[in-house]
Amino acid sequence: MASDNYEVTPMIERLNEAMESGAFAQVRRMINRGLPAQDVAHLLESSPPKERDLLWSMIEAEFRGDVLQYLTDDIQAIYLNRMNPEEFLAATEGLDTDDIADLLQQLPDTIIKEVLVSMDTQDRHRVEAVLSYPEDTAGGLMNTDTITIRPDITLDVVIRYLRRHQSIPDSTDSLIVVSRKDHFIGMLPLTRLLVSDPNITVREVMNTDAIVISADMPDSEVANLFEKYDLISAPVIDENGALLGRVTIDDVVDVIREDAEHSLMSMAGLDEDEDTFSPVLLTAKRRAVWLGINLLTALLASAVIGIFDATIEKVVALAVLMPIVASMGGIAGSQTLTVVIRGMALGHINSGNTGWLINREFIVGLINGAIWAAVVAGVAMFWFDDMMLGFIIGTAIIINLIVAVVAGASLPLFLKWMKIDPALAGGVLLTTVTDVIGFMAFLGLATVFYL
Amino acid sequence: MASDNYEVTPMIERLNEAMESGAFAQVRRMINRGLPAQDVAHLLESSPPKERDLLWSMIEAEFRGDVLQYLTDDIQAIYLNRMNPEEFLAATEGLDTDDIADLLQQLPDTIIKEVLVSMDTQDRHRVEAVLSYPEDTAGGLMNTDTITIRPDITLDVVIRYLRRHQSIPDSTDSLIVVSRKDHFIGMLPLTRLLVSDPNITVREVMNTDAIVISADMPDSEVANLFEKYDLISAPVIDENGALLGRVTIDDVVDVIREDAEHSLMSMAGLDEDEDTFSPVLLTAKRRAVWLGINLLTALLASAVIGIFDATIEKVVALAVLMPIVASMGGIAGSQTLTVVIRGMALGHINSGNTGWLINREFIVGLINGAIWAAVVAGVAMFWFDDMMLGFIIGTAIIINLIVAVVAGASLPLFLKWMKIDPALAGGVLLTTVTDVIGFMAFLGLATVFYL
Repeated sequence: MASDNYEVTPMIERLNEAMESGAFAQVRRMINRGLPAQDVAHLLESSPPKERDLLWSMIEAEFRGDVLQYLTDDIQAIYLNRMNPEEFLAATEGLDTDDIADLLQQLPDTIIKEVLVSMDTQDRHRVEAVLSYPEDTAGGLMNTDTITIRPDITLDVVIRYLRRHQSIPDSTDSLIVVSRKDHFIGMLPLTRLLVSDPNITVREVMNTDAIVISADMPDSEVANLFEKYDLISAPVIDENGALLGRVTIDDVVDVIREDAEHSLMSMAGLDEDEDTFSPVLLTAKRRAVWLGINLLTALLASAVIGIFDATIEKVVALAVLMPIVASMGGIAGSQTLTVVIRGMALGHINSGNTGWLINREFIVGLINGAIWAAVVAGVAMFWFDDMMLGFIIGTAIIINLIVAVVAGASLPLFLKWMKIDPALAGGVLLTTVTDVIGFMAFLGLATVFYL
Repeated sequence: MASDNYEVTPMIERLNEAMESGAFAQVRRMINRGLPAQDVAHLLESSPPKERDLLWSMIEAEFRGDVLQYLTDDIQAIYLNRMNPEEFLAATEGLDTDDIADLLQQLPDTIIKEVLVSMDTQDRHRVEAVLSYPEDTAGGLMNTDTITIRPDITLDVVIRYLRRHQSIPDSTDSLIVVSRKDHFIGMLPLTRLLVSDPNITVREVMNTDAIVISADMPDSEVANLFEKYDLISAPVIDENGALLGRVTIDDVVDVIREDAEHSLMSMAGLDEDEDTFSPVLLTAKRRAVWLGINLLTALLASAVIGIFDATIEKVVALAVLMPIVASMGGIAGSQTLTVVIRGMALGHINSGNTGWLINREFIVGLINGAIWAAVVAGVAMFWFDDMMLGFIIGTAIIINLIVAVVAGASLPLFLKWMKIDPALAGGVLLTTVTDVIGFMAFLGLATVFYL
C-alpha cells in the first residue's frame, strides 16, 4: 500500500533532471530506495523506449515484480518476455496471487508451466485457482488472501485470533464467515467487530445480505456492483457456494478506468492498453490497419460521387458544397453514437426504452436538420446566386441529418446484437452511412433538378 | 452501504413489467421497500422523461434524498429545482455532508441560504465547510464524518472508545490521529489496531508517512493518488495542517469514472453529465451549438475548394477523389489526438518527452502516408487511367497525413497551454487542419500540373 508522502511529482522531476544530466548512480539510488513502485511504473510509462530500457535495467531484480504489476499490459509484455522463469519468480515473490496470475498470463504457456512447477505448493494452488478463470472475470480478478472465520465463535475470540496475525491483507474491510465446508455464510465488517459487544457471537452481528460475486461474473459487472454499492471488498464463490477468494476495490478501480477508456480508444481504432510511447514501427503497423479500413469507406464515398460526375461537370458549385452535407451528417451522427455507446456501457439502454430513444433522435435530427439546412441554404444561395442550389443542399442536409442520428442510435444496438464491439466498428460504419447518404442525396437531387 | 442481494437486474426487470402493465401500487411498493436507492436511481436514469416523472412521484419523500445522491447531475438538477427548502431538508436528512453539499450546489443561492438556516448548527457548520471549497477539489469532495483519536492513548482505550459508538462511518479503514489543536499527526489503520498489542500507544503503531491531501487539490489529482496508492480513505487538511475531513474511495470512484468519460463525451461536444434520455428540445438545443461550430469548419473547407473551381471544372475526377485525401488525414490525426489526450489525462506527457512524441508521430505519418499514398495512387491511376492523377493524390496524402499526425500531437499540448480543454476543442481544430490542408494540397498540386 501507500508509502512515502504525496509529494511525488517533485521527486519525479528531480529524477528526470538526474537522468538528463547523466547522474545514473543517483537515478539508480532514487529508483530503488526512494520511489514507490507505482511511481517507478509511472516513470517508465512516461518514457520513450530507449530511456525506458535504461531505467528498467537500473531496477533491482527483486523490485521488478512490484513495478511490473503497475505497468500497462503493453509494457508489461515487453519486459516479461525478456525474463526467464527464475527471474520471474525472484521478481514476483511476495506479490498478491491475482497480480502474479495477471503477469503470468502474459507469458507463453511453456514458461507458465515452468514457473508454476518452481513455486511452492500453496502458492501454486492459489495461482492456479485464479488462472483457471478468464482474466476478465471475477475469478481472474480475485485474490486468495482472505481471512475467514466461523459463525459460532464470539467476537472476543475473533479479536484474539486476529492478534495472532502479523498483519491483515490490504483492502480488508470485512472478515468472511464460512461454514465447516468453506461455504460462504456472511460478512463481518471490521467496523462492526469494533463497535459490538465482544461477548456475542459472529452469527449475531454478521451481515448475511452482503453482495456475493460468482467467479464467472464479467469484470465490468463486478465494477458496476462495486461502484453502485460503494464496496471495498466482496467475496467470490464458485457455483456450489464455496468461497474461492475476494475481489478488492484497488483492482476494481483499474477495471473501471479501463472500461471507461475502452470506448474512447476504440472509437479511434486504438486499444485501451496502448502504450503512449510505443516505438515507431509498432505504432505505424497498428495504425495502418485502421487507416486501411477507413480507406474503404472513403473509396465507397468516392464511388458514389463518381456516379454523378456529369452533374458536377455541369455545376461545379456542387463539388464545392458537397463536403458540408457529409460533414454535418457525420457530426450529428457521432454525437448520437457517443451518447448511445456511453448509455449502453452504463446499462441505461434496454429493450423497453430503445424505441423512445430512436424516436427522440429522429425528432432532434429533424429540428437540427431544419435549422442548419436553412442556414446552409441561405449561404449557398448568396454565395452562388442560385435559389435552386439552396433548396437542394437544404433538403440534402435534412435527409442526411435524420439518417445520421437514427443510424447513430440504432447502429450500436445492432452491432451489440451481432456481438461486435460498437465502440470499435460504430464510427466507421456511421461515417460510411453519412458519406454515402450525404453525397447521394445532394448530388442525386442536383441531378434531378439540373440535368 | 450495501443492501439486499446482488440479483438486482431481475428485480428491475420485474419492475419494468409492473410499470408496463400499469400495476402502479406494486411499483410503488417495490421502489420504496424493495430496491436499494442506487437501483432506483439507475431505473430513473434508464427511463424516458414521462416514465421518469411518474416513477419519481411514487418515491416517498424521505427516500428521495437517498435516490438523488446517486443520480447524474443533469437529472438531479431537474428534481432539485422542483423542491422547496422543507422538502429538501426532509429528503436529505441522514445523508453524508459531502453529498448534501453536492446537492445544494445545484440550487440557486437564495434557496441554499434558506436551507442552511433551517439546518441544526453542527450540520450547518459541516456543510458550510464543504461548500467553501469548489466542487472539483478535495475540499468539495470531502466528508466531515471523521473519527479522530489522540496519539498518547493506548490501543485498548481506542477499542473501548470505539465500542461507545453505535456504528463507524462507511469506508472507514483508518482512524485519524490528531494533536490537541486538531492538527493531523498520523493514521491508525483499523487492521493495525486489530493485530497490535492493546497495551501500546497509538503513537507507537500509527502511520506517519500516510498520504495527506490539501483541501485545494483538484479532484482529478486526488483520484490519481487513490488509484496509484490503492487508498480507501485519506485525510484532508487546510493550509495550516488542521484536519478538515476525509476523502473516501466511493466518491473517488465517481471522479475516476467522470474523468475517463470526459474525454469521450467532449470529443463529440457533449458533457459527461449528459442524461441519456434528456428530452427532445434540450437535446436539440445542446447539439445545435456543436453542429454550428462544426459548420464553420465545413464552410472553411468549402471556401478552400471554391478557390480551385476552375481546376475541378477541367478535371472532374478531382471532385470524386478529394474526400479521400481529407478523410485519411482526419483519421490519422484523430488517432494521434486520442493517444495524446489520453496520455495527458494519465500524466504521461511532460516537457521532457513531447519532442520524442512529435518526432515519432512525424515518422509514423511518413511511413503510413507512403504506404497508403501508393495504394490510393494505384487505385486513382487505374480508375481514371491517368498517371498524373495518381502522382498528385499520392503526394497530397503524404503531405496531409504528416500534417495531420503532427497537428494531432501538438494541438492538445498547445490547447492545454492556452487553458482550453483539448478534448473539447481538439477534434474540431484538427478536422479544420486536415480538411484545409488536404483540399489545398490535392487541388493545389492539380492546379499546378493540369492548368
